[in-house]
Amino acid sequence: MKSRRWILALDVGGTNMTAGLFHDEVGEPLVLRSRSTPVAEGVGAVVARGVALLDEVRKEAEGAGVPPDRIVGAGIGVPGAVDPTRGIVSRAPNLAWNDVPIRDRFQEALGLPVVVDNDANCAALGEWWAGAGRGSRLMVGATLGTGIGGGIVREGRVLRGVTGSAGEIGHMTIQLDGRSCSCGNRGCLEAYASGTAIAQRAREALEEQRIRHREGGDPNRAGRPDDVDSPLPDHVGSTLSEDAGSILDSMVDGRWEELTAAHVSRAAGAGDELARAIMAETARYLGAGLAGLVNVLNPDRIVLTGGVALAGDLLLEPVRRHVRRQAFPSAAEACVIALARSPEGAGVRGAALTFRREVLEGHR
Amino acid sequence: MKSRRWILALDVGGTNMTAGLFHDEVGEPLVLRSRSTPVAEGVGAVVARGVALLDEVRKEAEGAGVPPDRIVGAGIGVPGAVDPTRGIVSRAPNLAWNDVPIRDRFQEALGLPVVVDNDANCAALGEWWAGAGRGSRLMVGATLGTGIGGGIVREGRVLRGVTGSAGEIGHMTIQLDGRSCSCGNRGCLEAYASGTAIAQRAREALEEQRIRHREGGDPNRAGRPDDVDSPLPDHVGSTLSEDAGSILDSMVDGRWEELTAAHVSRAAGAGDELARAIMAETARYLGAGLAGLVNVLNPDRIVLTGGVALAGDLLLEPVRRHVRRQAFPSAAEACVIALARSPEGAGVRGAALTFRREVLEGHR
Repeated sequence: MKSRRWILALDVGGTNMTAGLFHDEVGEPLVLRSRSTPVAEGVGAVVARGVALLDEVRKEAEGAGVPPDRIVGAGIGVPGAVDPTRGIVSRAPNLAWNDVPIRDRFQEALGLPVVVDNDANCAALGEWWAGAGRGSRLMVGATLGTGIGGGIVREGRVLRGVTGSAGEIGHMTIQLDGRSCSCGNRGCLEAYASGTAIAQRAREALEEQRIRHREGGDPNRAGRPDDVDSPLPDHVGSTLSEDAGSILDSMVDGRWEELTAAHVSRAAGAGDELARAIMAETARYLGAGLAGLVNVLNPDRIVLTGGVALAGDLLLEPVRRHVRRQAFPSAAEACVIALARSPEGAGVRGAALTFRREVLEGHR
Repeated sequence: MKSRRWILALDVGGTNMTAGLFHDEVGEPLVLRSRSTPVAEGVGAVVARGVALLDEVRKEAEGAGVPPDRIVGAGIGVPGAVDPTRGIVSRAPNLAWNDVPIRDRFQEALGLPVVVDNDANCAALGEWWAGAGRGSRLMVGATLGTGIGGGIVREGRVLRGVTGSAGEIGHMTIQLDGRSCSCGNRGCLEAYASGTAIAQRAREALEEQRIRHREGGDPNRAGRPDDVDSPLPDHVGSTLSEDAGSILDSMVDGRWEELTAAHVSRAAGAGDELARAIMAETARYLGAGLAGLVNVLNPDRIVLTGGVALAGDLLLEPVRRHVRRQAFPSAAEACVIALARSPEGAGVRGAALTFRREVLEGHR
């Protein structure tokens, strides 16, 4: 164990952060810990909690016999546009960060060299290294979490673009003048199919369902204005039975503000009709976005990761169908769409590999 | 002149085909000829006309002193998904071709080695070689013609994807369940912003304008069904003056079926209000699609080419504004959007370079 080098890694998500310790040659963590991300408290609080979490991981590793001086640095993944050469997060809508010199702040606090990259680049690289992306020549990792990120891995290297921000697949327009997105634009894929958007659409659908019952089955009589996007297409909304949404509703005991995408996915799994319709719509949105990527990039693999991907086959199968129906046939046939091996652990694993690539191997 | 090698090139468009002869080291044609593409007559007729055009070019070149035995082969660009290794056009919606072994057909007819690639890959490479893409590290060429194609050029090489069909930027969804596209899908960028789509929207807008006049200013009274996409957003349609569209209308003398995107662009240049609104909408659609590409690829250059790009600043300036407003700021700032140096000659030039790269230099 002494001859090995160990790498700390931190994946900062819009909801949770995960820290781990990896030896430099295998994509499996020795220690893994997770806590919530205190987004509302600002950059300082997020950095402090990240450092605390990494310190816990270091202590636990020492207890397990890892010599402290064999821990050589840290890789950090952050959800947003990152300039990896300067270690600056230029824009992270889901953290409300702009131009934060995150590498330097972690380096000072940890006393170790630090490498920062976009969290979705990390997740994609993590799945390419030791997950569902192994052996792929051109892979797109789609991270479906609080927001939607992405990473493009070509022959084992992240395609970064000219300023390091490539891969932001959540911010392709799929609906002109559509739902407002955290990036300031409208109609982005993220505004429809992220965990946040799934929960939001579920709340709206429950509300609409309640109005429908009150009004006796005709949602139009409830005076819903025409210019507001319905969370479900009319033909779906009108075919839902009376108890659609009741499993979902009971999960949060009527407190809809606490609804998350995980509730929707669990309710769908339990047979709730409304939740199933919302997941089916989610697959349709994702299918449209991913079909576009298949046409533009012609990859051999798309790996779905992040919390939303925990929905599993409920999401995967319809996404595959939509992509097969919408993309150019030869490109669709060449592309395997798969679930991440570890939807929530790929980011932290990839952050460790990013550190190895950039600092230990000296290139990106 | 004797020591030089000369390359024939043919760019097959959905409307016109252009043939040229290039010496192998400079991106300027010695001879250039253009004719219409007989799409409706099928593959055989298109190949026959392409061969005839190339033969004319050969004869003219001989007349200019090019020794026939110094013409070493031909590069051919085709609008659609091409498998360059097998020389097969797997799918070209605007030509209605499926699985056509186009390389072999041209090789037999010409008695020369032939290389086939997607026309938009050729156009992108042509502009990178000797046009608005010179010096770019990561460039997207957007070919706006009968359809919309694209080519991604990274460090001077076309990014082809795993089966050679990457770059199909016209087939990203920008409007779920939107206008029908030639690819069989709905809501693709091509269905809104190609030359075909511009002409179609112009015809619809003229029709709507006529109804509005007949009905006395309120388009809703005309009974336009709600589920049909208006060619113009309501707030634009309602502010148009009575003579909007009259310049456009007079250009084709009331025969709307003969309207092309070129008429719309010329009428807009002449001050026609309706045509200007249509071009403004076109820029908005293109802006949404290109902003998505800026976020996904983070290129340093986007070059607009093809017939629609002949609209020039009328299109370029608003497209730039939309992309700047919609894409991530750091990525938008890093990306110069420019018009092709030769909107209609880039494809044939790039087809020649493709032949040089693949046959004379032996790699792609």
